[in-house]
Amino acid sequence: MTQRNVNQPESAPRRTARPAAKPAPSPAQKPATIPVDLSPTTTVVRGIGRIPVTQVSPVIEGGAYAAKATVGELVPIRAKVFREGHDAVNASVIVTDPSGKETRHDMTPLAPRGLDPWEAWVRFDVEGPHTFRVEGWSDPWGTWLHNAEAKLPAGVDIELVCLEGRDLLERTASIAEEAGDPIEASILRATGQLLIPQRPAEDLLDVATGIGLAKAMAKHGPRELVSPTADYPIFVDRKQALFASWYEFFPRSEGATYDEATDTWTSGTFDSSHERLEAAAAMGFDVIYFPPIHPVGTAFKKGKNNTLDATEKDPGSPWAVGSPDGGHDAIHPDLGDWESFDRLVARAKELGVEIALDFALQASPDHPWVTEHPEWFTTRIDGTIAYAENPPKKYQDIYPINFDNDPEGIYNEVLRILRVWMDHGVRIFRVDNPHTKPVQFWAWIFEQIRATDPDVLFFAEAFTKPEMMHTLGKVGFHTSYTYFTWRVDKDEIEEYMGELSRDMDAFYRPNFFVNTPDINPFHLQSGNPAIFSIRAILAAMLSPAWGVYSGFELFEHLPLAPGREEYLDSEKYEYRPRDYDAQPNLNMLMGRLNSIRRDHPALQQLRQIDFHTAPHEKVLAFSKVDGADRVVVIVSLDPDNTVETEVHLDLTKLGLAADAALPVRDELTGATFTWGARNFVRLTPAQPAHILAVL
Amino acid sequence: MTQRNVNQPESAPRRTARPAAKPAPSPAQKPATIPVDLSPTTTVVRGIGRIPVTQVSPVIEGGAYAAKATVGELVPIRAKVFREGHDAVNASVIVTDPSGKETRHDMTPLAPRGLDPWEAWVRFDVEGPHTFRVEGWSDPWGTWLHNAEAKLPAGVDIELVCLEGRDLLERTASIAEEAGDPIEASILRATGQLLIPQRPAEDLLDVATGIGLAKAMAKHGPRELVSPTADYPIFVDRKQALFASWYEFFPRSEGATYDEATDTWTSGTFDSSHERLEAAAAMGFDVIYFPPIHPVGTAFKKGKNNTLDATEKDPGSPWAVGSPDGGHDAIHPDLGDWESFDRLVARAKELGVEIALDFALQASPDHPWVTEHPEWFTTRIDGTIAYAENPPKKYQDIYPINFDNDPEGIYNEVLRILRVWMDHGVRIFRVDNPHTKPVQFWAWIFEQIRATDPDVLFFAEAFTKPEMMHTLGKVGFHTSYTYFTWRVDKDEIEEYMGELSRDMDAFYRPNFFVNTPDINPFHLQSGNPAIFSIRAILAAMLSPAWGVYSGFELFEHLPLAPGREEYLDSEKYEYRPRDYDAQPNLNMLMGRLNSIRRDHPALQQLRQIDFHTAPHEKVLAFSKVDGADRVVVIVSLDPDNTVETEVHLDLTKLGLAADAALPVRDELTGATFTWGARNFVRLTPAQPAHILAVL
Repeated sequence: MTQRNVNQPESAPRRTARPAAKPAPSPAQKPATIPVDLSPTTTVVRGIGRIPVTQVSPVIEGGAYAAKATVGELVPIRAKVFREGHDAVNASVIVTDPSGKETRHDMTPLAPRGLDPWEAWVRFDVEGPHTFRVEGWSDPWGTWLHNAEAKLPAGVDIELVCLEGRDLLERTASIAEEAGDPIEASILRATGQLLIPQRPAEDLLDVATGIGLAKAMAKHGPRELVSPTADYPIFVDRKQALFASWYEFFPRSEGATYDEATDTWTSGTFDSSHERLEAAAAMGFDVIYFPPIHPVGTAFKKGKNNTLDATEKDPGSPWAVGSPDGGHDAIHPDLGDWESFDRLVARAKELGVEIALDFALQASPDHPWVTEHPEWFTTRIDGTIAYAENPPKKYQDIYPINFDNDPEGIYNEVLRILRVWMDHGVRIFRVDNPHTKPVQFWAWIFEQIRATDPDVLFFAEAFTKPEMMHTLGKVGFHTSYTYFTWRVDKDEIEEYMGELSRDMDAFYRPNFFVNTPDINPFHLQSGNPAIFSIRAILAAMLSPAWGVYSGFELFEHLPLAPGREEYLDSEKYEYRPRDYDAQPNLNMLMGRLNSIRRDHPALQQLRQIDFHTAPHEKVLAFSKVDGADRVVVIVSLDPDNTVETEVHLDLTKLGLAADAALPVRDELTGATFTWGARNFVRLTPAQPAHILAVL
Repeated sequence: MTQRNVNQPESAPRRTARPAAKPAPSPAQKPATIPVDLSPTTTVVRGIGRIPVTQVSPVIEGGAYAAKATVGELVPIRAKVFREGHDAVNASVIVTDPSGKETRHDMTPLAPRGLDPWEAWVRFDVEGPHTFRVEGWSDPWGTWLHNAEAKLPAGVDIELVCLEGRDLLERTASIAEEAGDPIEASILRATGQLLIPQRPAEDLLDVATGIGLAKAMAKHGPRELVSPTADYPIFVDRKQALFASWYEFFPRSEGATYDEATDTWTSGTFDSSHERLEAAAAMGFDVIYFPPIHPVGTAFKKGKNNTLDATEKDPGSPWAVGSPDGGHDAIHPDLGDWESFDRLVARAKELGVEIALDFALQASPDHPWVTEHPEWFTTRIDGTIAYAENPPKKYQDIYPINFDNDPEGIYNEVLRILRVWMDHGVRIFRVDNPHTKPVQFWAWIFEQIRATDPDVLFFAEAFTKPEMMHTLGKVGFHTSYTYFTWRVDKDEIEEYMGELSRDMDAFYRPNFFVNTPDINPFHLQSGNPAIFSIRAILAAMLSPAWGVYSGFELFEHLPLAPGREEYLDSEKYEYRPRDYDAQPNLNMLMGRLNSIRRDHPALQQLRQIDFHTAPHEKVLAFSKVDGADRVVVIVSLDPDNTVETEVHLDLTKLGLAADAALPVRDELTGATFTWGARNFVRLTPAQPAHILAVL
């Protein structure tokens, strides 16, 4: 659940104990306790080499943690590369894959040359731990060519230039031969023979600047004074770490029934959740996320709308984890048992989607840990266990864990619990409030999990200050909630996307949730369906990962109270079965958006996004590119009015001529147009966007 | 000499060999050859600790090189410090001095708090290698106080708050006792006894927030979960590395005489240079810098105005180092011998000034190295030694050194030469074109010199691209020429000072030369004395180090040709004795500026400078502060017109109330005024500045 600057509020008064859920099957062998080093360190090698290379990126905390990449993703590797004097400098990136194989990627100098920026975009194909280094090197070919281009037309040192050129081509031919490229070697030797001083300068220059020669030299030209940086870690995650469409629902609500006669609810179950799972999959969502499914505590249980007068009939908040039925490794008996959980996971697998579980590291006072491991909590001077507080407010239904009393014990227990769920097919965890736990605890957990199960992903529910959000990403959270939920104006969306795509991309992957059980944002509280469409389009098109908490598609929008961004009758505290086919709804739009995302690699990545000029302040225009795939999106930010404006596309950002004609197809309507640098758009509340695939 | 994007142009045709200068007395023992590691590396320790500390500064290339500080200088140490949850975080800097003694400096959280910036300004008192680390820590007192301030007024948990407070004060009293501070211990114990739950909340709060208690807790309060970063190097140089006033003259011009009968010049000497040395010292300059004083080559010698038709009567450029008379470890026989050099150094010492020597690592074709060590140059494919080129231009009077053919040989030879001059009292070298030599060569040299002679300073004549200039500073150049010479508009001066004082201060110390033998900047070419005054005032007031090449004070300004920034009849190629007392001159102003600089610590430092608003675009207003010393400078940038404007001082930048009355004295005129937030100024070409000391 979300807590911005507050502690944990959920709970539930005691109720009759139920039969304990069947304990989780233990893994074949209980792993030995792993020691916890509370001062983790990494040693990296430094210093400026013969050819200076500085400001290498992506490098996280000096190389202590791995930068982020995903399979198939283009990742920019940058550095400043320069040298003394006037000889030519050049640079390459050397990527080492998990098998130890090295691949060279030549870097390109960028403008402004005076600032010495170099860059290579590398596409990573294999999952797992990689490293990369930048090598600056002296480029004899570049030096010779520069000399030749200056001297030959001036008639200076013709003989020497030819002599040196021929020698260089001979040397390169030998390199080509050693590399098993006899054809290039022959070409190089023959070309060298063309450098005859008696020929006219323009003929010699023609030889020197030939395209074939340039290619041969780029491939085999000598590289001298090669100066490598340290090898910096970059971890290539599976694609879902970057590109995913999340759908959240409460299993207990799905198929829950109300008996008017007894005024009692019967909880939905894993088995009765199959229908919603299938519906979400049909809409193209590929990660289905459940709030905690563990036994819920009864001490200080919260009633409807977060009240303190809950009765036995209230189900309590799922985030008040733990009861006599068990803790984080147990299933709430109302939802089913391990067999039914496994059935649900198996059905998800059939549908090609994944189940993501909430991981909320806190305990209800009824959690088994409280009696078995009181040392995992804080005991106050009066002998009581400290509950959560945001003084003077108290959250007596929640005991925060004290990670410092027995790090080895609690760290290993958390690891054990994660492995229980991983063994049952859960490979994605949505971590509740990670910023209220020690950063170094997460770093340790990720180190352990990544070593054995690099496909397991962690999604940070960190709504907090920027540096903490960044740091959680740096130590290994694969993806994170974002401030998107509160970014509504054109300027703030453009600025935030700039930060995410250019400044934070090496360590932080966004997931744009349009709403959550904790956040009913003000801009949705009008209930106007157009704003729901707009926010879905923005989330799905701006970010490679987006998410929806169920009810959004039905335009649920009533706040707990005016000025509050919480839902009235929040599902956190009660059963909320829904008629998902009620009209109107956003099912079709969400499905269409997910389908467009699947069709377009440009929408599956974060780093290549550009904003374009639309004079109207309520119209956002941007393009995303990946290789040959290009998508242009124009969205109205005004749910109440028709807007008309020009849109000025900088077509060079699409790799096209500035005045190119642009045949496009609107992926929302199927209509085709020819666009150009200047275009007129008219967007309405009913049709608030164009999503244009460049044909 | 200065070369922007060109190679070395100076030279001289052969002339009759003279008797060899007496060789330098060799040091008592020739040091053993020091091996050259061409891939220098440093190992640093990394990783985020229990309390995260990130973005520590000043850290140079991950700690591979030392950040810069000077004796007496206030240096900001910054980091982001934050933690999980709601408990209080705090931070300290631990400085370790060369003797291993650690000193704690408490950090202060800055606004905006949401971005977690912390800072401590540390004044370093001892020369030599220091380290610093940042320690983030959990602050039980901060946590308790926050709780108490929230709970006591709300009447919540009064008993528990008092119990916990008393316990905390008891614990702290024990710490104070252990630290040998029994008085604070007694105060803490007694204060704890005042936390009686039955007292009114406001009385308890009064106890909790007392100033005495705050001080005692700041001193002795417990620090938990202390999380140190790596220890990062910071080198404290002698003060002259930051604060110095340079004056450059050519010894051969001082006392040079012309015999009309024979149309021949007799060179000035070290002995005839005493007068100028004394005059410069009298004007308050404290570093007297000489262009190369070595034998000058005769091969391809340059004549007047850099022409190629030099005769035997032309002295040649001092930067064409080396002749049969010797190389970099020899003295030009025309200038004198080692005895007369030693006399000049001794006189300088008496006057309290230092001699800085030019160190130009290049050779005339007549340099002894050319025959003794041809491997230190580049032999081309036709068997000739490569001269300097900027194709298609050739500079046949200069052989560049090839540092890669025999690094161990040439590195050690350079080290030997430097030690020759160091042994003769030269402790400052002005390095000619360091950006045309390998960066890692300099890093190696500085490592060797710093280990034995940490007082020896190197001044980089690097007029080149920013990254190279930065990197030369990072690997150890103590100070550098700057772009100031070409920064004339208000906006560009303000922007450049921002870069220097805030972005580059950890690795780059500026020396603002108003002119050099290579640079006769366009803005001085009018010859209007007012612009000379303005530039001197700007250089001397903006930068802790400034410099003048002689002739500036006489308003020398004629360019070699229109559109060229070189001097006509440049002293680089001929004798230029001057009548330094000719009127008008800037002698008095330069002396006054140096005197003001000596009186004001605020002007002796770089980092604490703020610009203020003057609506007039030709009026620059800034203030500098160091401790209690505050100086406000208002300068007209218009040498041709009287300017009148308001100046709006942000007095908070001076540590004063925004509406404070400001008694000031104009250090140029002695007049006193009372200034405030808004002031009127009238500046004229004759009186273009106010330099206001805040009284």
